[in-house]
Amino acid sequence: MREVAVLGVGMTKFGPTDLSIKELFAQAALEAIRESNLTSRDVQALFVGNVLGDFAEGQMNLAGFLADEIGLPPRIPATRVEGACATASIAFREAFMWVASGFYDIVLVGGVEKVSSMGTPLATRAFAMATDSHYEEFCGLTFPGVFAMLTHLYANKYGISLPTLKEQMARVAVKNHHNGAMNPLAQFQAEISMEKVLNSFMVCDPLQLYDCCPFSDGAAAVVLASREIAQARVAKPVKVLGVGQGSAGALSRQKDFTVMQSRVASARQAYKMAGIEARDIDLCELHDCFTIAEIVASECLGFFEFGQGSAAVEKGSTRIGGKIPINPSGGLKSKGHPIGATGCAQVYEIVKQLRGECGKRQVDGAKIGMTDTLGGDAGTVVNLILGV
Amino acid sequence: MREVAVLGVGMTKFGPTDLSIKELFAQAALEAIRESNLTSRDVQALFVGNVLGDFAEGQMNLAGFLADEIGLPPRIPATRVEGACATASIAFREAFMWVASGFYDIVLVGGVEKVSSMGTPLATRAFAMATDSHYEEFCGLTFPGVFAMLTHLYANKYGISLPTLKEQMARVAVKNHHNGAMNPLAQFQAEISMEKVLNSFMVCDPLQLYDCCPFSDGAAAVVLASREIAQARVAKPVKVLGVGQGSAGALSRQKDFTVMQSRVASARQAYKMAGIEARDIDLCELHDCFTIAEIVASECLGFFEFGQGSAAVEKGSTRIGGKIPINPSGGLKSKGHPIGATGCAQVYEIVKQLRGECGKRQVDGAKIGMTDTLGGDAGTVVNLILGV
Repeated sequence: MREVAVLGVGMTKFGPTDLSIKELFAQAALEAIRESNLTSRDVQALFVGNVLGDFAEGQMNLAGFLADEIGLPPRIPATRVEGACATASIAFREAFMWVASGFYDIVLVGGVEKVSSMGTPLATRAFAMATDSHYEEFCGLTFPGVFAMLTHLYANKYGISLPTLKEQMARVAVKNHHNGAMNPLAQFQAEISMEKVLNSFMVCDPLQLYDCCPFSDGAAAVVLASREIAQARVAKPVKVLGVGQGSAGALSRQKDFTVMQSRVASARQAYKMAGIEARDIDLCELHDCFTIAEIVASECLGFFEFGQGSAAVEKGSTRIGGKIPINPSGGLKSKGHPIGATGCAQVYEIVKQLRGECGKRQVDGAKIGMTDTLGGDAGTVVNLILGV
Repeated sequence: MREVAVLGVGMTKFGPTDLSIKELFAQAALEAIRESNLTSRDVQALFVGNVLGDFAEGQMNLAGFLADEIGLPPRIPATRVEGACATASIAFREAFMWVASGFYDIVLVGGVEKVSSMGTPLATRAFAMATDSHYEEFCGLTFPGVFAMLTHLYANKYGISLPTLKEQMARVAVKNHHNGAMNPLAQFQAEISMEKVLNSFMVCDPLQLYDCCPFSDGAAAVVLASREIAQARVAKPVKVLGVGQGSAGALSRQKDFTVMQSRVASARQAYKMAGIEARDIDLCELHDCFTIAEIVASECLGFFEFGQGSAAVEKGSTRIGGKIPINPSGGLKSKGHPIGATGCAQVYEIVKQLRGECGKRQVDGAKIGMTDTLGGDAGTVVNLILGV
């Protein structure tokens, strides 16, 4: 196992677009390759994350078509992975292993999603396929329902009144929109107020509109290589310090959804490989598909004690400049959530932050960053730790 | 990179069933684990291939649910890959790398597909999504159409009259059904005659019914481990000698579909890693989704000169006992083709053959076997070489 580094990253603007899956992917991939001071001919393998290409464009078997689109010849293996919203992070972890093993020197990994053309009812139905089809979908459960239940669970378990928790959750939304307003690639580049969040329409009690991330189109890509190549090619390579991945079955098989075991296990793996602890992380891009999801994730990753995550938001601990800046990019909530691309977009932000290229939303002195993606109702979780 | 071996394999009977995706997978996976003299608690990672779970059961994000179904705890990463009909072979190659790198010692890989519940029209439409959605599906192209065109191309390129070629193709069907009749897990365990093939109804000129493999349900699984563990655990470990994978874009981007470059490249990688040539292969399970597909594959893999594959069938070179026995299991044509499981089912047959456990269909003295899976119209190809 040898050291692996990120050479370059690329990302499209997130949000509804007329571009096709191929076009979105190519835009992000070619930017990542160009930023790496490479050409497509240098890429030895492609890993790509996509969830709903079959529903969006009637396209499965996507990887080869994407490889061809950016000029990769037939000898280049192109592999698609899928693990719901954790998809691109899984792809990253696979790409990492093929370089770490010494088998390939330069590997491209990307994620892409296009859902705007599906329309909201089909997209909602399709997203729900990441829950257990026999016991959860069957009951009409969709993700706002899953995370609404989680909100009640959290409030009840820790004895926090629902109005208090909702206000703390609203602060997550306000913070992430504040950060997203400074991100030119974010879907929503606009501040929102507490009043706006708390007066928005009810989606699934107690989750209101601004507790929920949007459906998004978009793509992101990353070039990985051995440390030697990275140092020879780019001025500021970013090292991959640790990776972790966990899994889980249906909700009914999980003891306590506020303490997701797949995430706890995944984070533990990543920390162990990196040889660090939660307190060493300077910033984190985590899976805020709903405001409550950010709070719960911040606890599972070890940034706060269990039951303290919501109060920590209130204290400002997760702001840029706080104890542990969370989602300086704007997160899924404001940057957007093209599900098959999100993991690589999180890496994009961490890499840009560690290089000090984030302008107004820069986390000063950031040396170690972490990503966290949650697939479905904890069925798949991936964590990545990067450092300079 | 260290040596990797197969400890155990498992497979369901192929063909329509009332079992669910989870049940099919569990049956094959637990058999593979049991045959390896292990329990589920020994498995350190899961890779799983599935193509159409979202259409068949409304289930994506499948890997975690399958992991849970066989008792794998949350710390075990479970990853789904998809590359159309090459899906399970991609999963195998990923699993191989995680063991070869030294990261994991014992990894489970499986593939599963359930399409009978979808009905033929939806299954036909869904399978077509493995072609290019913008230029091929759009024209109404489905796979019988792709391979019908290939038949005409082949006949024309090599100056073989269509009636002669069709008779040679019919011999592929007769041979594979002959083999499948000796395989208790095959979907069709019945001999067929030349007359039956040549008088069957026309699907897509010149392909008739018995030129085409069926839609199938089924699952197959394989346990991979380091050579040391394999030798300690089982009497007859089978070594993984070589792996290869190639990719391609739309048909319009491929110069000559009778010489699929993704397959040529993939086979070259596998031979190079194994340090052998085509002449060293004792038997091959290859992708006979249509009879013409077997002929073309046998050439791309180097068993016959280009243009000689169809005559080789006539000479009996591909029978059990011939120069290079092809599809002793019955192949996709007779054993069946649950698309996301096929690659692992090919490995199942090779492993059983190399262990000498195939009874009446045994290839005598087989020491080195190869698999070949084709995803879509050459968008993804994977080759694996195993040996004892």
